[in-house]
Amino acid sequence: MNKRIYLDYAATTPVDKRVLDAMQPYFYENFGNTMSLHEEGRKAKATLDSCRSNIAEFLGAKSEELVFTSGATESDNLALKGVAFANQNNGKHIITTKIEHAAILKTCEWLEKHGFEVSYLSVDQFGLIDLEELKNTIRKDTILVSIIYANNEIGTIQNMKEIGEICKNKEVYLHTDATQIFGKLPIDVNKLNIDLMTINAHKFYGPKGVGALYIRKGVSIEPVLHGGGHESGLRSTTVNVSGIVGFSEAVNIAKNEMKEDEIKQTKLRNYLIEEVLKISNSRLNGHPTRRLPNNANFSFSFIEGESLVLLLDDRGISCSTGSACSSPNLEPSHVLLSLGLKHDQAHGSLRVSIGKDTTKAEIDYFLNVLPDVVERLRKLSPLR
Amino acid sequence: MNKRIYLDYAATTPVDKRVLDAMQPYFYENFGNTMSLHEEGRKAKATLDSCRSNIAEFLGAKSEELVFTSGATESDNLALKGVAFANQNNGKHIITTKIEHAAILKTCEWLEKHGFEVSYLSVDQFGLIDLEELKNTIRKDTILVSIIYANNEIGTIQNMKEIGEICKNKEVYLHTDATQIFGKLPIDVNKLNIDLMTINAHKFYGPKGVGALYIRKGVSIEPVLHGGGHESGLRSTTVNVSGIVGFSEAVNIAKNEMKEDEIKQTKLRNYLIEEVLKISNSRLNGHPTRRLPNNANFSFSFIEGESLVLLLDDRGISCSTGSACSSPNLEPSHVLLSLGLKHDQAHGSLRVSIGKDTTKAEIDYFLNVLPDVVERLRKLSPLR
Repeated sequence: MNKRIYLDYAATTPVDKRVLDAMQPYFYENFGNTMSLHEEGRKAKATLDSCRSNIAEFLGAKSEELVFTSGATESDNLALKGVAFANQNNGKHIITTKIEHAAILKTCEWLEKHGFEVSYLSVDQFGLIDLEELKNTIRKDTILVSIIYANNEIGTIQNMKEIGEICKNKEVYLHTDATQIFGKLPIDVNKLNIDLMTINAHKFYGPKGVGALYIRKGVSIEPVLHGGGHESGLRSTTVNVSGIVGFSEAVNIAKNEMKEDEIKQTKLRNYLIEEVLKISNSRLNGHPTRRLPNNANFSFSFIEGESLVLLLDDRGISCSTGSACSSPNLEPSHVLLSLGLKHDQAHGSLRVSIGKDTTKAEIDYFLNVLPDVVERLRKLSPLR
Repeated sequence: MNKRIYLDYAATTPVDKRVLDAMQPYFYENFGNTMSLHEEGRKAKATLDSCRSNIAEFLGAKSEELVFTSGATESDNLALKGVAFANQNNGKHIITTKIEHAAILKTCEWLEKHGFEVSYLSVDQFGLIDLEELKNTIRKDTILVSIIYANNEIGTIQNMKEIGEICKNKEVYLHTDATQIFGKLPIDVNKLNIDLMTINAHKFYGPKGVGALYIRKGVSIEPVLHGGGHESGLRSTTVNVSGIVGFSEAVNIAKNEMKEDEIKQTKLRNYLIEEVLKISNSRLNGHPTRRLPNNANFSFSFIEGESLVLLLDDRGISCSTGSACSSPNLEPSHVLLSLGLKHDQAHGSLRVSIGKDTTKAEIDYFLNVLPDVVERLRKLSPLR
């Protein structure tokens, strides 16, 4: 192959050209500040309003239930800290899982230092939480449950409907980090009884630096960033209109193409999984079927994921090990360890995530290169 | 005039076409996640590094002393909360001024609720703090002084060198919100003894949604957004590479054109001030000379600033009253009240802020329209 093969769409995606086209007029021609009273300001405000209602509609939400942020990390911080501080008079107990993204786990650590108590639910070998454990962990002083919708490393999709019902019955707020699933599979926050949901743009062909938090009307929450009172006082800062226009256009594209992409990507991914598992001492991490259409995650015994990624990179293929967000971290993935994998298996993981532009020819090239690379690393391995 | 006349560059600026051109390749062609190990990731990381060192150099700072954020509000929050929490064992007293931007004032209010004590320095009729008052307010338990460099409403530029010396001698960290002055006048953080400085892109022809906090090496600070450990752990979230490229290109342009813009804008602004003050019962708010080259702020007795902005808007001219960041707020400007203006004078303020593209013909049109509009409003005024 002459061109590189990008199989790391879970880390980030290129901005769709239609998204970029939609954004272009909002840098120079329509550049107003949404808070300004004059025509430029009112135009910017109208654009913001229309993007907000477009994205909200896609979730089954009301327009006023969406707060724009700088991305998923900020949305996660706002959801957890915002709800924790606003509801601390009702209790200081929070429940999450062992397989959350660092944006949740590190925020929980911080909350623990500030007087909150956090319970971390375990997961089974496929990465699913135990609904009974969730029920039994909710206490009178539990104020929030936060469970990642689809895991960023292994792609496992939780039983969100059942989780939502449990939280509703126990009258506890439910937050979910839906960063990886949003734009790939349909979500209706009402049908799922989700109270807060983190979403962002750059994981589904929108620009980086833009995200949102869905906050059900009536949820008590405090801001994390204080200032001029933008976003109903919940997220102060001059509004990034061009970014939000891009986010909204990415949603428009998802509305039309999500189903078709899902079918195409699931088929390609299943083929990929089937072929990769022919390599000896390989295993699929995550759930065999309840997983994101574009995600595959493997462990290869006796080798190190980082070396695998680097050798594949040399051959023109981009994949990841662990999650992109903690790549420089040399610790084995906390997600894989939570599935029961041993240290060395967790170290030898490879995440392959495909996207809109991925072709069968690319997958075939990857499948041709991978066994060689694995074999080469195993020959060098002191672990063998 | 057929086209609109935008005189609200202090609220936000259009993205310079050269900035937008520089950003274009970072949406689709070079879209990698800076945390990824593969080629796309490494390219993104190299771009980030080069932008960081370019912007740092412009401040006289080291590359590793700059943390990118989503904008000035986030930088202000990070500076204040980050330093407060990291240094609370040394004391819980913070000093700021009565004329800060809401991003500082609201953050201080929040810190007060969390056990910190904040002293608010008063200002004289021109908006300058009293250096003796600053000296006398610093206590043994003072951990941070935060003083806006150039005020966003009245444009007054503080004596930052003297302030820096006082803080250095008293061994207290100095933070300044330099949002309005950055890119307009040269700043050297070392010569000024600034320990932390808020800057952003959209006030000087860069994109919205990108800012930075300069943090002198050795300053103890905690993150506000927790997650994957980006930006040396101080600001987690996938890096907005295209935005940062735009920020850096805006700096390149400022490096070359700042001096020339300053001379041109100061001249135009002085002409504007001279002419506007010919209107009866008008006054200039802020300092006659120590003010931003592009800022003019007036009060017209007997009239309401909001009505003035709306009538000017009808005539194709965009200005503001108070600051854009709190426009929907009907309270009179806290900045103008701090100068000693009465409620009705503070209500009748008009901020005119010019920019790169402002021409003398535009100013003349404005000068032609303004007296009529003021007169018309005064005729309707119950205050008269």
